[in-house]
Amino acid sequence: MHRSRIRVVEDALDANATIARANRADFERAGVRVVNLMSAPGAGKTTLLERSLARLGAGNGGPRIGVLEGDVQGTLDADRLASLHVPVVQINTDPGFGGECHLDANMVRSALPALPLERLDLLVIENVGNLVCPAEFRVGEDHRVMVASVTEGEDKPLKYPLMFRACELVLVNKIDLLPHLDFDLERFLYNLDAVHPGVQRLLVSARTGEGLAPWCDWLHTAAR
Amino acid sequence: MHRSRIRVVEDALDANATIARANRADFERAGVRVVNLMSAPGAGKTTLLERSLARLGAGNGGPRIGVLEGDVQGTLDADRLASLHVPVVQINTDPGFGGECHLDANMVRSALPALPLERLDLLVIENVGNLVCPAEFRVGEDHRVMVASVTEGEDKPLKYPLMFRACELVLVNKIDLLPHLDFDLERFLYNLDAVHPGVQRLLVSARTGEGLAPWCDWLHTAAR
Repeated sequence: MHRSRIRVVEDALDANATIARANRADFERAGVRVVNLMSAPGAGKTTLLERSLARLGAGNGGPRIGVLEGDVQGTLDADRLASLHVPVVQINTDPGFGGECHLDANMVRSALPALPLERLDLLVIENVGNLVCPAEFRVGEDHRVMVASVTEGEDKPLKYPLMFRACELVLVNKIDLLPHLDFDLERFLYNLDAVHPGVQRLLVSARTGEGLAPWCDWLHTAAR
Repeated sequence: MHRSRIRVVEDALDANATIARANRADFERAGVRVVNLMSAPGAGKTTLLERSLARLGAGNGGPRIGVLEGDVQGTLDADRLASLHVPVVQINTDPGFGGECHLDANMVRSALPALPLERLDLLVIENVGNLVCPAEFRVGEDHRVMVASVTEGEDKPLKYPLMFRACELVLVNKIDLLPHLDFDLERFLYNLDAVHPGVQRLLVSARTGEGLAPWCDWLHTAAR
């Protein structure tokens, strides 16, 4: 008789990894690349997406990009992006006890039937604003990108190292505010290299458009 | 025979509430009042505390204030506050799987033996930077206060309503940056009233000191 060993599922993260692999298989079958975009609340993810998708001509002849919006409650961000005529689906996490503080693979999976995956080149998943738990839950993405605002202080890589380590690209946003802050950019980048040596970083201002060109190039490449 | 009904402990929040009540009893026995201070990462909790405690003369003849610092990792904030010569204890939440995103009553309880509660008028608990889960876990506090930075955008009360509802005072911080932002203060306050009508709010700038007087008065009153 054939004997096989089955490893016991250890915890919620194991279950999450299983579902993330299923999502990933679906994404690959549909030929869509997926970016998991993370940040603290108010770091500027949505504004950055609005400006970048408009610049890339998504929904208007450019790469075919869809967005999955994760929020505890409401559809504010989805409404903002829908005006660009790209497919947008909202996930609200508030059926959890006071609202889940992150997206997990199962929440993303529940949204997939609402997305025209076969007709997308790239899906951007805008995670719930939080520097802790989103980094712990893979959702089946190809890339993890985070937005760090210069208004948040230089110490954030040291205080939330898992998030800064989990990403392959850090967008340092709101650089138009640098003249008005006591923010030491060199120290921030030093701290960033301390927790994730050499990680790619781009300085941007979603508000003024400064630095958006290389970030849009990155998105364009990710979309193939 | 006497029959008593024992309610089954339903979940982690029930267990948390039990421990929070034990903390509260200890605080009352010691005669110390407790403030749970919450915000998103980088909203300015630590800077605000630094400036306020110095202004109040805590550690220097003023009200006797201690601080319990909650962070995923590191002692950066505790180190900053220790220079004021007030009792500071650091809790790191990273023994959790990737780091817990909030303080709970049991973590606070584990720190109590390290604090000279009998010799304090007020204990400020600086929670982990996060707008979701800290609002769900009472730790035995008398007051819940949050810091919202104007750099985070007007929509945050609508996106994180539980946090804005959980607090009795909202400190709207970094108002020195208002001339440099597209932040509509009226709209923010309108959104705040939509989720927590009439909640007390104070406009402050930890950086310039603007508005610190009424906040320090509030702290002084809380300390009795």
